[in-house]
Amino acid sequence: MSTTASAHGSTAATTGPPLRWIRRFPEGGADQRFLLGGKGANLAEMTRMGLPVPPGFTITTGACLAYLRDGAFPAGLLDELRTVVAELEQEMGLAFGAAEAPLLFSVRSGAAFSMPGMMDTVLDLGLGRASLDGLARRTGDPWFATDAYRRLLELYSHVVLDVDEEVLQRAARGVLDLYAATDASALDLIGLQDLVGVLEVTIASRTGAPFPADPWQQLEQAVAAVFRSWNGRRARDYRRVEGISDDLGTAVNVQVMVFGNAGIDSGTGVAFTRDPATGERRPVGDFLLNAQGEDVVAGVRTTEPLHQLASHFPECAEHLRDVMARLESHYQDLCDIEFTVQHGRLFMLQTRVGKRTALASLRMAVEMADEGLIERSEAVRRFRPEELERLLHPRFDPDADVTVVTRGLPASPGAATGRAIFDADRAQALAADGTDVVLVRTNTSPADFHGMVAATGVLTSRGGLVSHAAVVARGMGTPAVCGAEDLVIDWHGRYATIGDVRIEQGDLISIDGTTGEVALGRVPVLPPATPPQLDRLLGWADELRRLAVFANADTAADAAQARRAGATGIGLCRTEHEFLGERLHLVQAVILAEDDEARRPALEALEQVQERDFVALLEAMDGLPVTVRLLDPPLHEFLPDVTELLVAEATGELPGPQRRLLQAALEWREVDPMLGIRGVRLGLLLPELYQTQVRALLHAAAARHRAGGDPRVRIMIPLVIGAAELSAALALVRTAAAAVADEIGEELPYEVGAMLETPRAALVAGELAPLVDFFSFGTNDLTQMTMGLSRDDVEARLMPHYLEHGLLAADPFQTLDPDGVGELVRVAVERTRRAAPSVELGVCGEHGGDPASIALFQRYGLDEVSCSPGRVLVARLAAAHAALAADADRDR
Amino acid sequence: MSTTASAHGSTAATTGPPLRWIRRFPEGGADQRFLLGGKGANLAEMTRMGLPVPPGFTITTGACLAYLRDGAFPAGLLDELRTVVAELEQEMGLAFGAAEAPLLFSVRSGAAFSMPGMMDTVLDLGLGRASLDGLARRTGDPWFATDAYRRLLELYSHVVLDVDEEVLQRAARGVLDLYAATDASALDLIGLQDLVGVLEVTIASRTGAPFPADPWQQLEQAVAAVFRSWNGRRARDYRRVEGISDDLGTAVNVQVMVFGNAGIDSGTGVAFTRDPATGERRPVGDFLLNAQGEDVVAGVRTTEPLHQLASHFPECAEHLRDVMARLESHYQDLCDIEFTVQHGRLFMLQTRVGKRTALASLRMAVEMADEGLIERSEAVRRFRPEELERLLHPRFDPDADVTVVTRGLPASPGAATGRAIFDADRAQALAADGTDVVLVRTNTSPADFHGMVAATGVLTSRGGLVSHAAVVARGMGTPAVCGAEDLVIDWHGRYATIGDVRIEQGDLISIDGTTGEVALGRVPVLPPATPPQLDRLLGWADELRRLAVFANADTAADAAQARRAGATGIGLCRTEHEFLGERLHLVQAVILAEDDEARRPALEALEQVQERDFVALLEAMDGLPVTVRLLDPPLHEFLPDVTELLVAEATGELPGPQRRLLQAALEWREVDPMLGIRGVRLGLLLPELYQTQVRALLHAAAARHRAGGDPRVRIMIPLVIGAAELSAALALVRTAAAAVADEIGEELPYEVGAMLETPRAALVAGELAPLVDFFSFGTNDLTQMTMGLSRDDVEARLMPHYLEHGLLAADPFQTLDPDGVGELVRVAVERTRRAAPSVELGVCGEHGGDPASIALFQRYGLDEVSCSPGRVLVARLAAAHAALAADADRDR
Repeated sequence: MSTTASAHGSTAATTGPPLRWIRRFPEGGADQRFLLGGKGANLAEMTRMGLPVPPGFTITTGACLAYLRDGAFPAGLLDELRTVVAELEQEMGLAFGAAEAPLLFSVRSGAAFSMPGMMDTVLDLGLGRASLDGLARRTGDPWFATDAYRRLLELYSHVVLDVDEEVLQRAARGVLDLYAATDASALDLIGLQDLVGVLEVTIASRTGAPFPADPWQQLEQAVAAVFRSWNGRRARDYRRVEGISDDLGTAVNVQVMVFGNAGIDSGTGVAFTRDPATGERRPVGDFLLNAQGEDVVAGVRTTEPLHQLASHFPECAEHLRDVMARLESHYQDLCDIEFTVQHGRLFMLQTRVGKRTALASLRMAVEMADEGLIERSEAVRRFRPEELERLLHPRFDPDADVTVVTRGLPASPGAATGRAIFDADRAQALAADGTDVVLVRTNTSPADFHGMVAATGVLTSRGGLVSHAAVVARGMGTPAVCGAEDLVIDWHGRYATIGDVRIEQGDLISIDGTTGEVALGRVPVLPPATPPQLDRLLGWADELRRLAVFANADTAADAAQARRAGATGIGLCRTEHEFLGERLHLVQAVILAEDDEARRPALEALEQVQERDFVALLEAMDGLPVTVRLLDPPLHEFLPDVTELLVAEATGELPGPQRRLLQAALEWREVDPMLGIRGVRLGLLLPELYQTQVRALLHAAAARHRAGGDPRVRIMIPLVIGAAELSAALALVRTAAAAVADEIGEELPYEVGAMLETPRAALVAGELAPLVDFFSFGTNDLTQMTMGLSRDDVEARLMPHYLEHGLLAADPFQTLDPDGVGELVRVAVERTRRAAPSVELGVCGEHGGDPASIALFQRYGLDEVSCSPGRVLVARLAAAHAALAADADRDR
Repeated sequence: MSTTASAHGSTAATTGPPLRWIRRFPEGGADQRFLLGGKGANLAEMTRMGLPVPPGFTITTGACLAYLRDGAFPAGLLDELRTVVAELEQEMGLAFGAAEAPLLFSVRSGAAFSMPGMMDTVLDLGLGRASLDGLARRTGDPWFATDAYRRLLELYSHVVLDVDEEVLQRAARGVLDLYAATDASALDLIGLQDLVGVLEVTIASRTGAPFPADPWQQLEQAVAAVFRSWNGRRARDYRRVEGISDDLGTAVNVQVMVFGNAGIDSGTGVAFTRDPATGERRPVGDFLLNAQGEDVVAGVRTTEPLHQLASHFPECAEHLRDVMARLESHYQDLCDIEFTVQHGRLFMLQTRVGKRTALASLRMAVEMADEGLIERSEAVRRFRPEELERLLHPRFDPDADVTVVTRGLPASPGAATGRAIFDADRAQALAADGTDVVLVRTNTSPADFHGMVAATGVLTSRGGLVSHAAVVARGMGTPAVCGAEDLVIDWHGRYATIGDVRIEQGDLISIDGTTGEVALGRVPVLPPATPPQLDRLLGWADELRRLAVFANADTAADAAQARRAGATGIGLCRTEHEFLGERLHLVQAVILAEDDEARRPALEALEQVQERDFVALLEAMDGLPVTVRLLDPPLHEFLPDVTELLVAEATGELPGPQRRLLQAALEWREVDPMLGIRGVRLGLLLPELYQTQVRALLHAAAARHRAGGDPRVRIMIPLVIGAAELSAALALVRTAAAAVADEIGEELPYEVGAMLETPRAALVAGELAPLVDFFSFGTNDLTQMTMGLSRDDVEARLMPHYLEHGLLAADPFQTLDPDGVGELVRVAVERTRRAAPSVELGVCGEHGGDPASIALFQRYGLDEVSCSPGRVLVARLAAAHAALAADADRDR
């Protein structure tokens, strides 16, 4: 695809001196999108491929930037314009602005990245009263010629002269009404001539000058208008949101007109080389006979499906099939094209790599690899983790009969149905009664937090993707559509309207946070999709990735799910799970025991239930590593809420036996529990707790071993801050392990590790490393401590405010903060590798399932990520992407 | 003092081949304490100075290490021993072990550092039945000769043969009783001979062998015993506590005997070149006529003060004065000496730099500098910050009539008097009634914490300097004496005994945590001392130090105190102080206001009271920088306790108006307030709060300016985590400042800064630095977050456990953790200096007043430390020490 030879000068196609501001199509290529814009680069590419592209040229982005800088065309541009137009006149045997056989152009903008708000298209440029008749004579079709002038007047006055569209429409409406026509195509020649006259008068009165008869004036004004549109409000806003530089500028494409509306042997259409919805390998598209591009979009006439093209123009259809096949094999990807048929002859007006659904993206990636069109690694690269995520959320069934009443921003993925409720208190109350609720608010604030927690979905009429509602919903994994601007909520009347549609409080509505759709009633929902191609693509991803993917799983059921999804180990089993529910009284008995003697029976009972749990877990993960974190939370988490106990006591409702619980709750209550006595600290203060857990785990491993299994035990110490402390904890583990070995007459192998979740542990990792077999970064706590942010306390109020005002670049609990937390991880990895190269390094915070964070972990050089079972598939793909990105970085 | 020329071989004084394991005194010097031990090095130094030192030699520490490694004397040592003894025989004209004119030795241990538990002294070594008569004949004094043998038997059997002292004493008691004598000196010659006989028999029966008659056997056994004592239990324990290496070994000093007990023309004594208690410039000491060293120590006979020496031996006294003057000018320090007068002739047996009280240390340092004996920088170096601290705590009046009943470890400085109470609950109850209490426990545990908080002093009978009681008391600044092992507590009987003394619960007792003394009744206490020399020495320190010393002060009174103590700025003014007390209702009104309108009156009232406070503060610090930290604590700190409100509500005792307080308390309650919404976070959520503070501060500055003052305002933003956040906060400040400038028609200068107290802020300091004029490390919070330790939650239970078990090297809230927190400070300083070299760097956590931490801050390159007003003096001195240490490091 490379055409670098022609990048800096003229080619054989031009005859004059080298051009500076303009490139003829054959000079460019697809790799020059920054100079020629995406559209121009692809027109050049197709020209060089020998495809039937109407001749033309591209005015470069450099000319645009010079114009915007100086407020005038750069020196030489107009001369160059005259030179290339003269070339085209000669090639086409037509003359620009000539009364006879006039040369007409289309003028279209084209920046490096496709961008809404840029000036669109002017067709038939060069036409005027003087040349109208010439065109009519040349085509033998006065109606066609007049209609071309009508199109020019409408488009030009709107996009170049900035005449209000409605003003023109009102003027046209008068003529149409006179002739009882619905639109211009229904007018006869006389009527059309009247319409053209009215448009000319309207334009002159609106702009204070007649419509420019001079084709050069038309061309220069159109080019300048395209240039200026780069700095239009909408374009600027879009660039800011998308992070596109203001310094790129736009190119302008000027192309000889071809006419799909030249008669019933003509037509125009759009097509995809494969189905962009399903990925199926067959061209799909629409076309209209005797029409120009805007007619297809306008939707006035019903298009025909692409496969019917052959019934009208068999040769053209054959040619188009061939062109599409060549394009796909050339671009090695789905292509999205625009074509025109003029008097039975095919012309290509545009191509680009086509957008697609997540499902299609997956299918095409796999099938193109199977076809040999692309490498398997390229197939993996093309299917983004975000797309996979979309597949894995429930979504509206596209085949269902859905009344989409409006559309907002896709703020938090997933589909939800519930009763529309307009205030948080009521949402909470209804949800407490088991009713599914969609909280509908203009926007949300911390005062709505309890309602959001209770809701199955959130819908707002204001606010963007970092509004309070969006941030909080994503944080909680609740589907949300935000900024649905057509939605008007009457809070006092307890109803909302969307245009004519009225939603009463309590009405069932559905939202799809993946697409932003809002619908009435209950919409059938597709469960998460796992299309047949997924396994194969993830298999290829597995071969590419260098990070192992483990899962955080506390139960055998979770572990089995993770294993099915492809996890090759448990990176974090939170043993506190085993201490809840029916077992809580055992833990409380341990806490309340006055001495070791009294504590022993409770500990023994705990040991037995834990052992059973561990047997099941090790069985589910037989042959794979299972990392068990010893008890982490503070003791008061196993006691009733101290405030409730105090209130009960004050009102005389505290049962006698609960007095000791109150005492214990008071004794163990903490000001800042996250930084209090938990993790290894508790383990060292109450050594029996950890030893009981180690005993249970190793007895379970022994049982599995006796049953012929292959248990792989890893014991992990949480919340470490120093080497002496870690040594003491490991000594406890070894003592318990030795006792078990004595009892069963066999030494079972196990590995030991520590969580790096305090900043200090990360900084002194070099001292800790020689003591362990593995480390796991606990990035949740590490983030909380490094940033001094308690997730519980900032979620409702602070984080939305910070994200909305750009005070934080991203929610650090969703994507790892690279400058603070990431820096600590980087330093810890470096020091660990230096001190003890064999130590395995992983991460088990929630970031382990986030693609952007996984890319960072790859860069830091970790060995493994561990995430929730539901995110294992995404993590496998993201890890492959991270490896590909790292390779690309290295090769750069 | 250097004698390196002789360090590796013989000198002119020796004639044989070079010695390997032994140095004659003239060969060594004071700088060879690691080879010769402290005692040997100083004997060598005095010998080389030409002072009257009895001849002798030192067996090196190298010989000791070889002996301990091999379990036998190293090859060549015994030959060398024979060589030097032969030399001494020749010089003295005596013969070792000869029947006539026997040569006798003293043998004493001497390690590099003075160490209890090492073998002490054997005198008169070389004597035996064979030489006894010869000695009697030579001295003409059979009683003296027999007594010398008696001394040899007693000392040798105890320290070399390890015979139980009590066994010998019982045997001796029989003879003494027979002669109705209180001690050996009261026996006549016959009695003494009987005693000697009994001792010989006892030794033989205890050891299974007769007392060695062979002088060589005596010498070799004595040397081996000294060597072995290096590994004695007490010596090892001492070394572990003091951090002295086990690899140093001890030397052995062998010296020709001189006899202070040779008659009434003889004597022995100890002296200091200046008064070690007061520092006064006059020799002080004690001596005994006709006595040997151990007689002075034994205390059987009453010593005479040194100045009476002249009345007995005028020439000797003159000589001694001259020797002491030479020693002091040679050592340039207080010297502590032992001397003996034998037949009117002075001999020096030992010298070393003398220990002294803190008061004496200060006075001597200043006076010696004034005398020109030492440089002023050396004077500063000699007076340690710990000594100054001791002066600054109240202590027992040394002139008071105090009954010290026992002594424990000085666990937490300061003196306290109170009623002895044996349990924490009762201590708390009494203290609540206003009674001063000293909590007396065998040891303390977390269950005693509330009692310790309530007590004015803590006394325990068990536990060392890192026991729970010691750690907690130091953390709270409560005086404590720990490990007073003579104290026996009968918890049930509610009394304690110390020997015969009985202390009932409720009795008044006093403790001095600086000295470890425990006394009955109320002991008069000296207030903190600021002797006249202190100002001058601190003035010298100010010239040496490179760290500025600021103070943390919230009020004008605190600021004035800090300024008097020499603080040159306020590094931290916590404005929340202004929000407490009578003003609390104003803050609550701000919190409870439903909208801006309702909030305005409360904010305006707050602004007025704050402005008054700031005027006073700026006046107190006129011309010096005042750093005002904008509001830092979370809002719920200004609301009543939510639990209490809930209990009141449940019992129907919540007054109506308090309902809104309850609502607000619930709304603002947090799980982990330290990591919640406070500091700049609150400032950005409620911008009026910060703007009110800035307005008040700048209006106050304007008022001071109008009054002719020189206000220096610095505004500090707390709890920053990122650059965008800091920019937003500074924009708030600037907006408020601009508004004030508009109002008063004048722009007042002010500086802006940020606290670095989250790990992230430290890591991204390079990004923050260009935004500010100064940074201040908040090392309290930085420590809590870096280590994940909430001080409130770990103080009672975890920290004592961790320190006692060596899981942390030091309490990180008292001395900065260099490996974790210090690493972050170091990195932040480096990044700040690189990004914005002009940014001033300080610290305002409590570590700013801790000498060990100040040394770290100097090393990291900070510009200033800020500490509580009460620690400014210590910080000034510590900063000078830090600078001297840094210079020494650099020169090394």
